[in-house]
Amino acid sequence: MPNRTVFFVSDGTGITAETFGNSILNQFSFRPHHVRRPFIDTVDKAHQVMREINHAAEIEGRRPIVFVTLIDPAVQAIVKENCNGLVLDLFNTFIEPLEAEFGVKSNHRVGRFSDVSKSQEYTDRIEAINFSLAHDDGQSSKNLLSADVILVGVSRSGKTPTSLYLAMQHGIKAANYPLIPEDFERGCIPSSLAAYKKKCFGLTIDPLRLNQIRTERRPDSKYASLENCRYEVREAETMMRREGIAWLSSTHKSIEEIATTILRDIRPDRLMY
Amino acid sequence: MPNRTVFFVSDGTGITAETFGNSILNQFSFRPHHVRRPFIDTVDKAHQVMREINHAAEIEGRRPIVFVTLIDPAVQAIVKENCNGLVLDLFNTFIEPLEAEFGVKSNHRVGRFSDVSKSQEYTDRIEAINFSLAHDDGQSSKNLLSADVILVGVSRSGKTPTSLYLAMQHGIKAANYPLIPEDFERGCIPSSLAAYKKKCFGLTIDPLRLNQIRTERRPDSKYASLENCRYEVREAETMMRREGIAWLSSTHKSIEEIATTILRDIRPDRLMY
Repeated sequence: MPNRTVFFVSDGTGITAETFGNSILNQFSFRPHHVRRPFIDTVDKAHQVMREINHAAEIEGRRPIVFVTLIDPAVQAIVKENCNGLVLDLFNTFIEPLEAEFGVKSNHRVGRFSDVSKSQEYTDRIEAINFSLAHDDGQSSKNLLSADVILVGVSRSGKTPTSLYLAMQHGIKAANYPLIPEDFERGCIPSSLAAYKKKCFGLTIDPLRLNQIRTERRPDSKYASLENCRYEVREAETMMRREGIAWLSSTHKSIEEIATTILRDIRPDRLMY
Repeated sequence: MPNRTVFFVSDGTGITAETFGNSILNQFSFRPHHVRRPFIDTVDKAHQVMREINHAAEIEGRRPIVFVTLIDPAVQAIVKENCNGLVLDLFNTFIEPLEAEFGVKSNHRVGRFSDVSKSQEYTDRIEAINFSLAHDDGQSSKNLLSADVILVGVSRSGKTPTSLYLAMQHGIKAANYPLIPEDFERGCIPSSLAAYKKKCFGLTIDPLRLNQIRTERRPDSKYASLENCRYEVREAETMMRREGIAWLSSTHKSIEEIATTILRDIRPDRLMY
């Protein structure tokens, strides 16, 4: 597939347009050039984007793909009517059937967020991020009572990024605790976790992959050696099985997939709200 | 608007369906009940979700709204043909015009992520998260050369969540440095930042809001007092102006909005790739 630019044009951050557009484009095998144009909320800015789209059309000799999430009808009209691109209007396509279904008109409110300083949901997300940071890597056992989830696993199994993702996207207070050789020798999970086993969720990882990841950080160390990785992973899995802690392997999974699985398994309420 | 459930049904994490569905629903003033059903990738699971949707329809006496991102035609058919909901098919609605435009068929690949352990983009995101954590709150001046962005601002102006968001979503190595009373007395930015002024971006905040946020953390402290908040914000803004550092106010902005603005202003390349 020759060059072809994809534009994501939005009156807000454009995150919705881009996330969604990418899911669609992933169904095709070529990688077009991406351009995100956020905060297009005036007629002037719309004209500017339109010129940019038309310039790309001319240079590339084919129509750019234009995903739009624009609310203001005047702004929308400029992009939709004057640009030489294939415009895919993400909002109106679905707003119309919903207006019919609900029997009410939509409110044409621009932007995903109104005023975050007044939003409890947003305040909770920020608080969850602070909590997850303060409880990263077993730093603190204080307030584990108020944790929603406690991730456990060997060093570099993916606990930190997953905790932060859970906090940032879902407002989940996710602590994380490393399982270390001392725990394996003692034969039980850290004592500070014992009372919270139901909130624990384990991450494991293929020893070969772990060896790769640890080697990048500390080449030629015992810590990174394949033998030690095999030992730690085996011991950690034995321990989680014995303690009745559910776990999954992070080897081939993104933090988004890991987080969604954790929510489904231990906080299904967070997928229903 | 009476009770009405919205389902987000996906063969992957359902994040695309939910993010997108929420943007659409935000155009209406009522808050329906949300249910996310991820990993619906078999005919059996599809039947189960369908029963759940039909059950909600019966209880509520009106059609649930069902946003679907399903690739497998067999799984899709079960949900689309048998459920008593208003099904909004996010994928096929746009895949068809794109197939026509590109002159190729889509590849019907299920899931947003293939195998993250082989993805450079994913590895970069994880590395960026580690970098941002190691360079949070001025913890380290090492490797600032490799930072993509350095956020500066008074304590609790939103630097940490924004840095982590930039790392997690965009693979941006975002360090952050607090501006503290010592800096104001000395009258210049921390010396470790002097060489990297072009990568600096400031966050400021309304002193009243700052006072509120700090009071929650340390009630009745000098740190949280309105007088001190006013002083710090004024000094920080004066300093950023003098040093030629661009800044924005985080008072009414979400981390998504702040991050998008930073990318647009100092790393526009990251909005084009």
